[in-house]
Amino acid sequence: MIVEILAIGTELLLGQIVNSNATRIGERLADAGLDHFQQTVVGDNEARIVTAIDAACSRADALILTGGLGPTKDDLTREALAEAADVELIFDSEQADRLRERWTSSGRVMPESNLQQAERPLGSELIANPKGTAPGIRMQIADTWVFALPGVPAEMIPMLEDSVIPFLGGDDDSAVVSRLLRTWGESESAIGERLGDLYDTSTNPTIAFLASGGEIKIRITAKATSRDKAAALIAPFEATIRERLGKRIFGADDDTVEVVVLRMLEERDWTLGTAESATGGLVAGRITSVPGASRVFRGSVVSYSTEVKESLLDVSGDLIAEHGVVSEPVAVAMAEGARERLGADVVVSVTGSAGPEPQERPVGTVVVAVVTPDGSRVRTLNLPGDRERVRTFASTAALQLLRMSLQGVDWGSR
Amino acid sequence: MIVEILAIGTELLLGQIVNSNATRIGERLADAGLDHFQQTVVGDNEARIVTAIDAACSRADALILTGGLGPTKDDLTREALAEAADVELIFDSEQADRLRERWTSSGRVMPESNLQQAERPLGSELIANPKGTAPGIRMQIADTWVFALPGVPAEMIPMLEDSVIPFLGGDDDSAVVSRLLRTWGESESAIGERLGDLYDTSTNPTIAFLASGGEIKIRITAKATSRDKAAALIAPFEATIRERLGKRIFGADDDTVEVVVLRMLEERDWTLGTAESATGGLVAGRITSVPGASRVFRGSVVSYSTEVKESLLDVSGDLIAEHGVVSEPVAVAMAEGARERLGADVVVSVTGSAGPEPQERPVGTVVVAVVTPDGSRVRTLNLPGDRERVRTFASTAALQLLRMSLQGVDWGSR
Repeated sequence: MIVEILAIGTELLLGQIVNSNATRIGERLADAGLDHFQQTVVGDNEARIVTAIDAACSRADALILTGGLGPTKDDLTREALAEAADVELIFDSEQADRLRERWTSSGRVMPESNLQQAERPLGSELIANPKGTAPGIRMQIADTWVFALPGVPAEMIPMLEDSVIPFLGGDDDSAVVSRLLRTWGESESAIGERLGDLYDTSTNPTIAFLASGGEIKIRITAKATSRDKAAALIAPFEATIRERLGKRIFGADDDTVEVVVLRMLEERDWTLGTAESATGGLVAGRITSVPGASRVFRGSVVSYSTEVKESLLDVSGDLIAEHGVVSEPVAVAMAEGARERLGADVVVSVTGSAGPEPQERPVGTVVVAVVTPDGSRVRTLNLPGDRERVRTFASTAALQLLRMSLQGVDWGSR
Repeated sequence: MIVEILAIGTELLLGQIVNSNATRIGERLADAGLDHFQQTVVGDNEARIVTAIDAACSRADALILTGGLGPTKDDLTREALAEAADVELIFDSEQADRLRERWTSSGRVMPESNLQQAERPLGSELIANPKGTAPGIRMQIADTWVFALPGVPAEMIPMLEDSVIPFLGGDDDSAVVSRLLRTWGESESAIGERLGDLYDTSTNPTIAFLASGGEIKIRITAKATSRDKAAALIAPFEATIRERLGKRIFGADDDTVEVVVLRMLEERDWTLGTAESATGGLVAGRITSVPGASRVFRGSVVSYSTEVKESLLDVSGDLIAEHGVVSEPVAVAMAEGARERLGADVVVSVTGSAGPEPQERPVGTVVVAVVTPDGSRVRTLNLPGDRERVRTFASTAALQLLRMSLQGVDWGSR
């Protein structure tokens, strides 16, 4: 089973957005053991979409399209599919009812133009879209199964998971299984060197390295005649990597650092708070992204101005005058103040200079403190990059140092 | 001049990295007024690279390849170019000297495998790479100019700027200019209906619609013999759209709602704070993403637990008992409490039920209050989608309702 991806949208050609849909779909196809050799992008031009569909159908057994299913006139995927298959577009009155119902239930009147989302090529079936109004379309063009999904990733991904991947069913005779190990605290090249011999000598499983948001992920991928057999190839390989990397590995697969931290706190029956300056609420935002965070998380004081550090976190003006706001004593005082004010057992605090203009200390200087019932720790970091990168890496560092404190792991040389 | 992009690399197909090179090149081609209708991605497979080169050359006047120029065995772009052009690969001894020199100057001995970076198809020219070891390649295949650049963005981008765009000579002949108008408060289809006739009748400029994060963006794109002339085509078109959409448009180009809100507050010399429950710090995080936010932003109280709403925001227990935490009276009390505690002139507050489990009210129920020196407003919203989407849309709604309050715009029927 060979699968291709065709992304539709002039905004992709103009470089206004990145084609992250192709990335997500490619990742998922690999996980499912489906072969995938080519991706194409074309703009909102019906003739070029039709040509691209024809070309892809001549090469592939299945084609996944993204984009062009919206309610406006530059959404041309429905028309292009009908033309490529040489069939009529028909009006699906059941879908029209579902669209009206969806609008009515949110107390609004549906504009008539939305009814184009009730059209589909004759002989096609609609794919349910639980997250939005645009249904997907499944149909055959010549011998190729074609799936059209919306361009909005939050809508596309569940439809891919629920309706496309299960339909394609993967290759019955082979399964590709991947295991993701998440690390923090060492560079990609240092991790690469520790595992270099495995990279060079192993063809099944293979390993790959992926850096994002300050973390290095290691992907182990094995192919075998069943998922169980592929998993059995991975197990000893994973054990070797874990032996070499130790506590640098903090989680596997979907265990983000937020999930890991909340789980450890809940096991101890400890509550959590944050006190944030440079990260401005990002750490709290990441923690509360996890469903059920309310069982552990009390809240945060984002003390962006110095006055709020004093009034809501009880950091003394003398301490600030002596050390500056980007300092280890102030970070500890912020955490201790937040612990008291929020009534939390554990607090992580962040203060720093995110740029573009330096604040007291050079841009990238970030101080993280963690206070738990067992004591407090504080560390000054020098993070590279611009404001966005410094803030992202600082929020990751805060969560990772919190995780290491809870695990009793030395904060080490970082 | 029609230009295509062909990105080479199995890691792109496996979804291990995003094809940001295509995004960057696409953006640059648009700036230069060069037409660009298609992008392709293939893996590290010589036969498929050759087929993709042939196909692109049949459609385009110029082809920009990225990737596959490294020193390892899976770097096949040189071989594929030679095969597509039906010429030999030759060894360039001057380039070999440059490679050895580069390694020697950094105090290292060059592995022999690097000498494959001194090979090039007969009849091609090398493109200097100031940032790395892999030179680019320029050659003609049939009537198409082909440029092969490295996959590493930091190496690719200067070569594109210095050697490819000037060669294609885009800037002199024509320019494409885009203008992005940002709207909030109406659906994509409703916006589409208001502008449907412009979409139907205008070919230069063109308009397109883009939905993301709860906002609808309208892109106006014009092509002319210079940037000034393209801008002059856009101006009356933009005026018409602004007349029709009025205050639904809150910004243009890089003016995100965060930027717009901070600018309006700074002009009035008003400070800002947030009080967040369901959004858990996301609103503060977005505000503080803007450089210079500290001139306006005091801080935030993220009152995730009910106790913190009482202790740090002075919301009375009786009010919570009577109305529940997801209610308009509590949202207003949170904003008023934060205004006092943070010493801010303006506060936006958010409370709600983000899911997956409903909290008091159905998932998606979100209450936003805005308190300014001029008074307070509050609104209950019903947002669709899962936890992540509800939180994102809620933070957008909070910022937009804040913006409308500052502009004195009615919160309308949304």
